[in-house]
Amino acid sequence: MKYNFKNDYTKGCHPDILAALSTHNMSAEDGYGEDSFSLQAAALIKDKIGNKDAGVYFVSGGTQANLTVIASILRPYESVIAAESAHIQVHETGAIEATGHRIQTVKSAHGKLKPADIEKQLDKFEEVHTTIPRMVYISNSTEVGTIYSREELIAISNFCREHDLILFVDGARLASALTSIDNDLSLEDLGRYTDVFYIGGTKAGALIGEAIVINKPDLQKNFLYNVKQRGALLAKGRLFGIQFLELFKNELFFTLGAHANQMARKLSSGITDLGFSFLTPTCTNQIFPIFPNAVIADLQQDYAFFTWEKIDAEKSVVRLVTCWATDEGAVDEFIRDLKKVCSNHT
Amino acid sequence: MKYNFKNDYTKGCHPDILAALSTHNMSAEDGYGEDSFSLQAAALIKDKIGNKDAGVYFVSGGTQANLTVIASILRPYESVIAAESAHIQVHETGAIEATGHRIQTVKSAHGKLKPADIEKQLDKFEEVHTTIPRMVYISNSTEVGTIYSREELIAISNFCREHDLILFVDGARLASALTSIDNDLSLEDLGRYTDVFYIGGTKAGALIGEAIVINKPDLQKNFLYNVKQRGALLAKGRLFGIQFLELFKNELFFTLGAHANQMARKLSSGITDLGFSFLTPTCTNQIFPIFPNAVIADLQQDYAFFTWEKIDAEKSVVRLVTCWATDEGAVDEFIRDLKKVCSNHT
Amino acid sequence: MKYNFKNDYTKGCHPDILAALSTHNMSAEDGYGEDSFSLQAAALIKDKIGNKDAGVYFVSGGTQANLTVIASILRPYESVIAAESAHIQVHETGAIEATGHRIQTVKSAHGKLKPADIEKQLDKFEEVHTTIPRMVYISNSTEVGTIYSREELIAISNFCREHDLILFVDGARLASALTSIDNDLSLEDLGRYTDVFYIGGTKAGALIGEAIVINKPDLQKNFLYNVKQRGALLAKGRLFGIQFLELFKNELFFTLGAHANQMARKLSSGITDLGFSFLTPTCTNQIFPIFPNAVIADLQQDYAFFTWEKIDAEKSVVRLVTCWATDEGAVDEFIRDLKKVCSNHT
Amino acid sequence: MKYNFKNDYTKGCHPDILAALSTHNMSAEDGYGEDSFSLQAAALIKDKIGNKDAGVYFVSGGTQANLTVIASILRPYESVIAAESAHIQVHETGAIEATGHRIQTVKSAHGKLKPADIEKQLDKFEEVHTTIPRMVYISNSTEVGTIYSREELIAISNFCREHDLILFVDGARLASALTSIDNDLSLEDLGRYTDVFYIGGTKAGALIGEAIVINKPDLQKNFLYNVKQRGALLAKGRLFGIQFLELFKNELFFTLGAHANQMARKLSSGITDLGFSFLTPTCTNQIFPIFPNAVIADLQQDYAFFTWEKIDAEKSVVRLVTCWATDEGAVDEFIRDLKKVCSNHT
Repeated sequence: MKYNFKNDYTKGCHPDILAALSTHNMSAEDGYGEDSFSLQAAALIKDKIGNKDAGVYFVSGGTQANLTVIASILRPYESVIAAESAHIQVHETGAIEATGHRIQTVKSAHGKLKPADIEKQLDKFEEVHTTIPRMVYISNSTEVGTIYSREELIAISNFCREHDLILFVDGARLASALTSIDNDLSLEDLGRYTDVFYIGGTKAGALIGEAIVINKPDLQKNFLYNVKQRGALLAKGRLFGIQFLELFKNELFFTLGAHANQMARKLSSGITDLGFSFLTPTCTNQIFPIFPNAVIADLQQDYAFFTWEKIDAEKSVVRLVTCWATDEGAVDEFIRDLKKVCSNHT
Repeated sequence: MKYNFKNDYTKGCHPDILAALSTHNMSAEDGYGEDSFSLQAAALIKDKIGNKDAGVYFVSGGTQANLTVIASILRPYESVIAAESAHIQVHETGAIEATGHRIQTVKSAHGKLKPADIEKQLDKFEEVHTTIPRMVYISNSTEVGTIYSREELIAISNFCREHDLILFVDGARLASALTSIDNDLSLEDLGRYTDVFYIGGTKAGALIGEAIVINKPDLQKNFLYNVKQRGALLAKGRLFGIQFLELFKNELFFTLGAHANQMARKLSSGITDLGFSFLTPTCTNQIFPIFPNAVIADLQQDYAFFTWEKIDAEKSVVRLVTCWATDEGAVDEFIRDLKKVCSNHT
Repeated sequence: MKYNFKNDYTKGCHPDILAALSTHNMSAEDGYGEDSFSLQAAALIKDKIGNKDAGVYFVSGGTQANLTVIASILRPYESVIAAESAHIQVHETGAIEATGHRIQTVKSAHGKLKPADIEKQLDKFEEVHTTIPRMVYISNSTEVGTIYSREELIAISNFCREHDLILFVDGARLASALTSIDNDLSLEDLGRYTDVFYIGGTKAGALIGEAIVINKPDLQKNFLYNVKQRGALLAKGRLFGIQFLELFKNELFFTLGAHANQMARKLSSGITDLGFSFLTPTCTNQIFPIFPNAVIADLQQDYAFFTWEKIDAEKSVVRLVTCWATDEGAVDEFIRDLKKVCSNHT
Repeated sequence: MKYNFKNDYTKGCHPDILAALSTHNMSAEDGYGEDSFSLQAAALIKDKIGNKDAGVYFVSGGTQANLTVIASILRPYESVIAAESAHIQVHETGAIEATGHRIQTVKSAHGKLKPADIEKQLDKFEEVHTTIPRMVYISNSTEVGTIYSREELIAISNFCREHDLILFVDGARLASALTSIDNDLSLEDLGRYTDVFYIGGTKAGALIGEAIVINKPDLQKNFLYNVKQRGALLAKGRLFGIQFLELFKNELFFTLGAHANQMARKLSSGITDLGFSFLTPTCTNQIFPIFPNAVIADLQQDYAFFTWEKIDAEKSVVRLVTCWATDEGAVDEFIRDLKKVCSNHT
């Protein structure tokens, strides 16, 4: 195997994070999120997003973040609106429904929601006989690697506020989104225009951990009880605190996201040069080239990656994911090998 | 603060575990528990417990292990029998009920269940109008530091098999239980006499992680879907695999448990020598001395620990917990300080 | 079989109710509780309890009322305090837990809660690691036929208001409670001192139906969505409306309750005269005499009733239930037969 | 108001049913479905469907039937496939999700599923990361009044058996489906080709009640516990038993269904004669003509009915529902009035 492009969690963590875990290993700390590192990391994140009234809570993964947030905020008869391609819809084994809530899905272009899409769901509402749509879930970057512009986020945010909808942004790949060359959103924007969002650590160079940020004060009330009840409150919460402190005390979070994106652009550009097209434009660290099946089969001799979907009998979309740890050499080699494979097939 | 006796998760992890995380940090691995370390660790654990047909699954904490196991095995109308002092009853914020299941609690001596206690719960059954008791939950060591003898475990196991009850052992502190000087149980016994149990890593020197072992093959079916649905399936499952491999490839798990117990015995013996009595006999790494409130107040100047319960207006039980990282010096100092405090109060 | 004392739902409904169903059978009405009868019945009940701001909702049975109310009001991490003998604890097949909520049970005398009992449960609270007790559930009459005095209800109500607890009264047998000769409570008191209660129709001469009354306006918000979601909203809601209108437009509800109580007192007094004692004092339509097992066996030749619990090897408590339809002849005959059975055994 | 075409539950019940309730009113019966009428009705239904091993259970409404069946059969990580227009998806306030299960919806023609539609959902399955589709839910008649032919039902049944899927038929309007002039299905077919179905009483002339029939023996195990836990087990189960006995002891169920259909055909034919078209072909007692909005507004002066959906700025679909109690005079008058309204608008 020359390189594994399957996802952005194939490696451990950035060496600085490992070093921080070592440095603080023997410090005696309180449990369940009361350790000094978690408290510092939370303060730092509140500072970075420019919202001192935010609540910050660490959990171990994206599904856990999603289910805890959604089950905490919604009343039993309330539902969440999401894109048909949303992670909560396609890859979380019914975790949201298992907490008792419906996802109302919207067909959408490039994995992104627009106010008009949300409005169409609101129109389906019938008093007493349907659930009440009460939350909008979007991801940035999305399941297919696209991102929201500042204008787009503000439009959704305004729509949500006008319609008494909670806006929740899944930021499992926020590092990659915010460092895209096409991005004009900031952490402060997320602090201002969303009600809840989470900052993904696992896919941004940490070993484990997502930081849930609740901007709206009334949604923070007793939130920790939900975290505990869902089994998401770690005894050694320090594990989260130390890592997020390291990611945010300087610019590591952004540096790592930018690197992943740069590798993806390089990969994308090499593939484009060879004449291939893509399912979605390359914005972040996930790219979706369309290859002939024979090419895919050959590439899979040396590279690990997922086939995303069939285009027709001959061609399929594949997903190539870069990360904080992807080295340029691997990218170059992939392009060379792709060239070779292509020439074999013509 | 001279020392923190609050719990067994105040420090990070044993240095060997940290070293292993470093060594394997850049190895490219599959996600969601399919990494080579998790596979090896699972194989090793199956070997140690002597059950090749077991299923081994890693999750991040005790509450998560408990809720995933119980919700996976029970049908909606089935309940679990546990001691009134059981962790699932007293310290998990209703996590079991949140999955839809009742806990039927039994008043019990020293946190331990006996077949007769279980039978009394079975007697409460009324067709259709009550839940069907279907699982028995015990902890080893228990919430109050006591342990089950081999004979006691076999008695419960036999009773459960005769009454079509699933036996589930919460082993958050199994390292301490199995290395108690009073213990005659082995990992193989858990592989033979229980249907499900879990091996606690967090309180045994790991950063995070519990290994759920399902002995009964039919209970393994689709279990991983439950793990995923509850948000317990880590993207970087390697974090569990590497740690459990380290704990079990030699005898680290047992060495660390034995150390914690030795420190607890030393502490207990020093306290006994000063004339104090205990809520429960000292078996493992949690001890429960009874002190005058004035003594407690003085000790809390220099030591962190929890007050467990009131005895009367003058005296209370406190809980002192040792761990893999407790140094003998801290124990000696605590005894010296206790002596001083006592002399001040007489 | 001479008579069935098993419960208060062995017969159909009072003839006046049947007549009303006939009278209004062909009236065309809106569905799902919007029929004119349900609206009138709700208005009438609000009037009788003296709370124009109450919300009134009809459902088909006690378990349904209990689970809908509790699941609607509590947040996921909140629990309800109830007596160990409470119906939700002993005879509803885990219906409350199935909605995700814990019942915190209290050992109590004669099935009744006191503020001190509730306070003991509050003392068990530990921040984040336990559920938050948020509701108190009592029944009037209780599972063992006893009733709350006005003073007792006010004491609980005051305690609940001081401690931010919702007071919910299960009135499956409220007709019998309010017409007990020992009673000094009124419907208006329930409107004033409780947050939610329900008025049982099924055990008070109706075919089916319980009227949930929510006194507290903020608890009414979207309550009907919960009713619908739990499958409790009848298409032909008229079935509830017509019956409750009949029960309350005159004094039928009270007349029927009083009759049941009178029959129970007659039964109780006859049994007392024969020298038997009781588990609880006779207040309402359920009485709990203690008989020798041989006497029970003989009586069961001609009468249907439940054995409630064992006293010792020789004696057991039985439960005899009278209802709106119990005729005095049956009671007289039972006493005569009991006398005969007794003389056979001496 | 001249007539209410809003639905098939505007009136009470057929006079024969009311008479039966009167006749048996004072018979003393056991509670919770153990009454002699429920036992007889269950036996009769088993006989009519030709499956002596079936289990028959009565509940009070369609949502309750659906949620109890689905929550009872599916494991937490399993989902149910249904048409986008399915009642469980559009009109039950998230009742299925509230029990923890996902509905996987399929866009479908005329509210009906085909094996190919189901297969497309199966293709979305990804091991561990999606739910496992395990049940197929169809309605007969459907939400838009169409019915399944025998051949269509058998095709779905075979597909389900080949793919280990449970087939569940919602028969809220089964009386109307089985008496459609286009129908070739029998009750015996439902006993043979489905795993579970229910027979709607509420919309077929009863006051209340649906009869759930579980054909597959292993799905019957402990089903009654689920019925009780969901609050669906009536104390006075006689209310169901007496009604279903009356519906099935002769041919009342079919007679009433046939009448409703005949009235719908008459209505449909009169509307067709006036030149209007329909959303779906008229098969059963729900018809969906397309009218100009001005016509609709005029008709609503005298008639109650629902506007189903907009076609364009000028026209909308309305739903007209007939029932067991619709008299021919009302139908004739509606057609006359429609004619008049039309002539006013031309």
